[in-house]
Amino acid sequence: MTKPFVAVLMGSDSDLPVMQATLDVLKSFEITTEVKVTSAHRTPAATHSYVTDAEARGCGVFICGAGLAAHLAGAVAGITTLPVIGVPIDAGPLQGMDALLSTAMMPGGVPVATVAIGSAGAKNAGYLAAQILATGDKELALAVKADRQKNAEAVIAKDAALQERLKG
Amino acid sequence: MTKPFVAVLMGSDSDLPVMQATLDVLKSFEITTEVKVTSAHRTPAATHSYVTDAEARGCGVFICGAGLAAHLAGAVAGITTLPVIGVPIDAGPLQGMDALLSTAMMPGGVPVATVAIGSAGAKNAGYLAAQILATGDKELALAVKADRQKNAEAVIAKDAALQERLKG
Amino acid sequence: MTKPFVAVLMGSDSDLPVMQATLDVLKSFEITTEVKVTSAHRTPAATHSYVTDAEARGCGVFICGAGLAAHLAGAVAGITTLPVIGVPIDAGPLQGMDALLSTAMMPGGVPVATVAIGSAGAKNAGYLAAQILATGDKELALAVKADRQKNAEAVIAKDAALQERLKG
Amino acid sequence: MTKPFVAVLMGSDSDLPVMQATLDVLKSFEITTEVKVTSAHRTPAATHSYVTDAEARGCGVFICGAGLAAHLAGAVAGITTLPVIGVPIDAGPLQGMDALLSTAMMPGGVPVATVAIGSAGAKNAGYLAAQILATGDKELALAVKADRQKNAEAVIAKDAALQERLKG
Amino acid sequence: MTKPFVAVLMGSDSDLPVMQATLDVLKSFEITTEVKVTSAHRTPAATHSYVTDAEARGCGVFICGAGLAAHLAGAVAGITTLPVIGVPIDAGPLQGMDALLSTAMMPGGVPVATVAIGSAGAKNAGYLAAQILATGDKELALAVKADRQKNAEAVIAKDAALQERLKG
Amino acid sequence: MTKPFVAVLMGSDSDLPVMQATLDVLKSFEITTEVKVTSAHRTPAATHSYVTDAEARGCGVFICGAGLAAHLAGAVAGITTLPVIGVPIDAGPLQGMDALLSTAMMPGGVPVATVAIGSAGAKNAGYLAAQILATGDKELALAVKADRQKNAEAVIAKDAALQERLKG
Amino acid sequence: MTKPFVAVLMGSDSDLPVMQATLDVLKSFEITTEVKVTSAHRTPAATHSYVTDAEARGCGVFICGAGLAAHLAGAVAGITTLPVIGVPIDAGPLQGMDALLSTAMMPGGVPVATVAIGSAGAKNAGYLAAQILATGDKELALAVKADRQKNAEAVIAKDAALQERLKG
Amino acid sequence: MTKPFVAVLMGSDSDLPVMQATLDVLKSFEITTEVKVTSAHRTPAATHSYVTDAEARGCGVFICGAGLAAHLAGAVAGITTLPVIGVPIDAGPLQGMDALLSTAMMPGGVPVATVAIGSAGAKNAGYLAAQILATGDKELALAVKADRQKNAEAVIAKDAALQERLKG
Repeated sequence: MTKPFVAVLMGSDSDLPVMQATLDVLKSFEITTEVKVTSAHRTPAATHSYVTDAEARGCGVFICGAGLAAHLAGAVAGITTLPVIGVPIDAGPLQGMDALLSTAMMPGGVPVATVAIGSAGAKNAGYLAAQILATGDKELALAVKADRQKNAEAVIAKDAALQERLKG
Repeated sequence: MTKPFVAVLMGSDSDLPVMQATLDVLKSFEITTEVKVTSAHRTPAATHSYVTDAEARGCGVFICGAGLAAHLAGAVAGITTLPVIGVPIDAGPLQGMDALLSTAMMPGGVPVATVAIGSAGAKNAGYLAAQILATGDKELALAVKADRQKNAEAVIAKDAALQERLKG
Repeated sequence: MTKPFVAVLMGSDSDLPVMQATLDVLKSFEITTEVKVTSAHRTPAATHSYVTDAEARGCGVFICGAGLAAHLAGAVAGITTLPVIGVPIDAGPLQGMDALLSTAMMPGGVPVATVAIGSAGAKNAGYLAAQILATGDKELALAVKADRQKNAEAVIAKDAALQERLKG
Repeated sequence: MTKPFVAVLMGSDSDLPVMQATLDVLKSFEITTEVKVTSAHRTPAATHSYVTDAEARGCGVFICGAGLAAHLAGAVAGITTLPVIGVPIDAGPLQGMDALLSTAMMPGGVPVATVAIGSAGAKNAGYLAAQILATGDKELALAVKADRQKNAEAVIAKDAALQERLKG
Repeated sequence: MTKPFVAVLMGSDSDLPVMQATLDVLKSFEITTEVKVTSAHRTPAATHSYVTDAEARGCGVFICGAGLAAHLAGAVAGITTLPVIGVPIDAGPLQGMDALLSTAMMPGGVPVATVAIGSAGAKNAGYLAAQILATGDKELALAVKADRQKNAEAVIAKDAALQERLKG
Repeated sequence: MTKPFVAVLMGSDSDLPVMQATLDVLKSFEITTEVKVTSAHRTPAATHSYVTDAEARGCGVFICGAGLAAHLAGAVAGITTLPVIGVPIDAGPLQGMDALLSTAMMPGGVPVATVAIGSAGAKNAGYLAAQILATGDKELALAVKADRQKNAEAVIAKDAALQERLKG
Repeated sequence: MTKPFVAVLMGSDSDLPVMQATLDVLKSFEITTEVKVTSAHRTPAATHSYVTDAEARGCGVFICGAGLAAHLAGAVAGITTLPVIGVPIDAGPLQGMDALLSTAMMPGGVPVATVAIGSAGAKNAGYLAAQILATGDKELALAVKADRQKNAEAVIAKDAALQERLKG
Repeated sequence: MTKPFVAVLMGSDSDLPVMQATLDVLKSFEITTEVKVTSAHRTPAATHSYVTDAEARGCGVFICGAGLAAHLAGAVAGITTLPVIGVPIDAGPLQGMDALLSTAMMPGGVPVATVAIGSAGAKNAGYLAAQILATGDKELALAVKADRQKNAEAVIAKDAALQERLKG
């Protein structure tokens, strides 16, 4: 059986620099990924077709990045019952506070798994997708654990470097 | 030729008490009105059908009331190019600030005419719809002007009553 | 009969770079437009004369851009019963949150059709005005629909370009 | 020469319970006061006439209470060059944050002396008007100083009472 | 193989009335659930033991409800690499805005799947956990889809009832 | 009798660039002005002495500019019963929202006349001080009216220039 | 040598119900406590005398509770170099957000140890004062540790009770 | 007996530029200081060991700087009963408002002494730690008082320089 892939949707190609962090994390876990520029408001029909089709083709998790009145994640969550992760993009004058509330405050029955605004959230969307797929994939679960360990060691190494610097 | 009607959509029948103010204003101007409970997230297909059908049947303006991550107005605005008015409902712990941002901060190309949060906004959604329809309906334009005059007189009457009370 | 024109008001000529997006959209629809620098606070009498006069001369929609305690749209809405669109400008330290609330939270009876803060909102003010005028102008209605279609195709083209880039 | 009076304007008679605190303070200083219900949006012409007329009849300070997109103080400040005090009323779902920003964030050249949201602000509007009139009225200046002293003594008395209670 | 269970943690038993919505949804999907009162700050050691132990015993998803500076979800996410869902509780004077930011704004590498503040979020935490577990459980996936359909029908039934009422 | 002067206080000399707008307006009205760097927290005794002394020497209005937890205006208002104008400075990460609330939300009995955050507020502090002093100074009152007229003409001139530009 | 006492100041006796939580915690640790109603704005001189005198009499920590533009903690911190703890009270329409910013955002050189808004913060002010005094008082340090243990056990007991209830 | 030292923790070495202000203040008071990069989420075990060990080795006060969902101070406060000072770092799109709420809004029983967002707070964390240690160290208490005096003189010198400049 082929492994599920992750579909990464964004409302505009101007969101790609932020969402690249998602793609990098997914790639580091060797998770198959599709990227799609599609808009909840400007191309609702194309969004609907893509989501339905992706689900049929074996998508396991959707990740949606959008700014302002960020409806993309919510719209996708209304089409599929697969897990949908929303990344509020810090575009526009309100710095993503609008996108955070538009993504997180979903009504009962249609959840969006919301992560932090901007680049930290984009990175964590990749991690969260990996964690979700890892619930059914032991190899991936071990890779996620190993990566966590590696991150911990990076913090410890930075501390060690700082202690050296302070001594010097 | 029949006059265009106004379609008033709300995400849940629990929004009706707030949206009643919209219906009252539209009724006072004798504007034909349809009311529809439909959800951007829970019934996206029904929402799509209704909007497309309403447009075909002669709808002139859509009014959408929703709370929390209020996507209904934006979703409708993505389906039709008729004017869409969004009423942010003050449901939930953030008192409608989430709904205001989710409704107003639409990306370029898909406008939502946003009014105030809650009952003042619901009332004004009715007035704004009447003003929009009045651009092509002289009788309605006169009725809107007359109502404005009546409202001004009501303020002046309240002031007169206050002056009396203060004298007495 | 001549077609109605759109009056675009702004509190200061420093708002013009943001409001240019409104003018560009209106021009793309070949809608006759007047631009006026006038202030709710510094030139209330000139504002009043202009609005009354513009209404008499066949104005169909007013669009008002203002920042900070943005009263221009509300002031105009208190003078006319034509539809008034308010664009909150992201000037000053609060990045337009003050302008959004000052524009959107109008009391019952005097609506302002509020759009997003800043450039996305300025663009949408033009679209919303076109949609409103299109309720009485079939040719314009078709142009608005065609433009929506063109925007959708632009998103789809961007997606196609991205897919190419990712393959390459 | 007759002493200047204070004009207390409010957008709706529903603001009177909050604005009563203003009237009480002004009365305690024996300052002649006029109360006026008038709306920046619903009765702009009546507001303009009243302000112009009050200025001609010897008004010294205007106090304006309003909620939501509170434009009344700003509108009055655009008509007169007398000092205008704005009281943001905590009406509506945003609890007066909208009214605070709409009142305080005035553009350069047209100041509004803004006080706190709600009842504390309404009280302080009365005190501020008294302080302003006292710059040209020695007797009033002494009364304001005496009242401040009395307020200080009230705090000290409350402390003494508390000390008694704690001992007992 | 036994199916994974869901662990529902809350910082205080006073959070139970809100988190009951989570339990109800999980129960409706016949998902085995453990409930645990444990605090990130007051019982960090007990939290750590429970999470480690639960993971070893076959927990598939953690759901953490907390208010104020809501650290419980983040603390759990730092212990395990299983998916962690955070429910910001609307306790305290800031109505859960503090809990939303404390839960959602996690740094890169340690994601928390954040849902809406309060009861809507509590309900959606249950749905999101079911969706996550359903990625490896076809029967559950079908149950989630059926429930979505049922919810859509409930909205449609409410609309039908409203249409009846309006006709009557 | 000598005319009252205006004392302009600021918590730090780093506030001078913003507060220069206040000094410029006061100078344009030929109002005698003192500038003082003094801190509510770092030099409370010096602040107290200066305020008491300035009042004795004929100060008519205090203007206080401060950022962050901006207490200077409130502290001065607690020392004197002369009118105190507070300018919230947009220093620090919260862009002056902290300073606005710290300045405006004064408890009953000790008002601060708060103006807008930052440079618009600094300018308006000068105008408001002039308006206050003008209540007892007819020549100044005329100068303030003339300046308002000049400002209105400037807006009208900018509009005329824009009309020319659009025609050309 | 006598042990230092804690001085608990509040701007108004209406703050006592919230600040009672502080007194209860201090009492549970048998820390000598003085309670004082005094205002940064209404009784600045009395505040100054009290703080100077308390410091001379052996005060170890000041705790200040205040709402709105909460300056009391900052004012006390400007008088003494002893640790000052600020409790933002959730009075007024902004629910203590104003008090939080007025208390926490102190400029460099004059710190206020800020705790949470309202009752949780009032309780923690007592704990923080105990922790500070415990740095020089081993017996108190042990009592603080014992109390923490007791609180942990209370959480564990609540969890046990919940498990019983769920089983039953 | 050796004097207690201060442990300065930060979640990432990218926080060091802000936290340097803390180190500078502590150094100016000749307080022994340890710096540690450790993360509440990425290295919870290392954080726990370090805090427990530091307490055993004679740490007197912990200072924790963190941004976003800033849990470090709260996590440390849950491990130790020594005073913990939290510095909300202004990293990320929300400019530290998220970190302020995550740090300050701690539940009852586990206090964090929160200071201002960013560099002003980092500086004050050093001052507050010095004030806390000074409660048991007379020499340090005198040094803190002397520094306060020096700061006051610096403000007075800046004022004198300004007066010279304005005269010249």
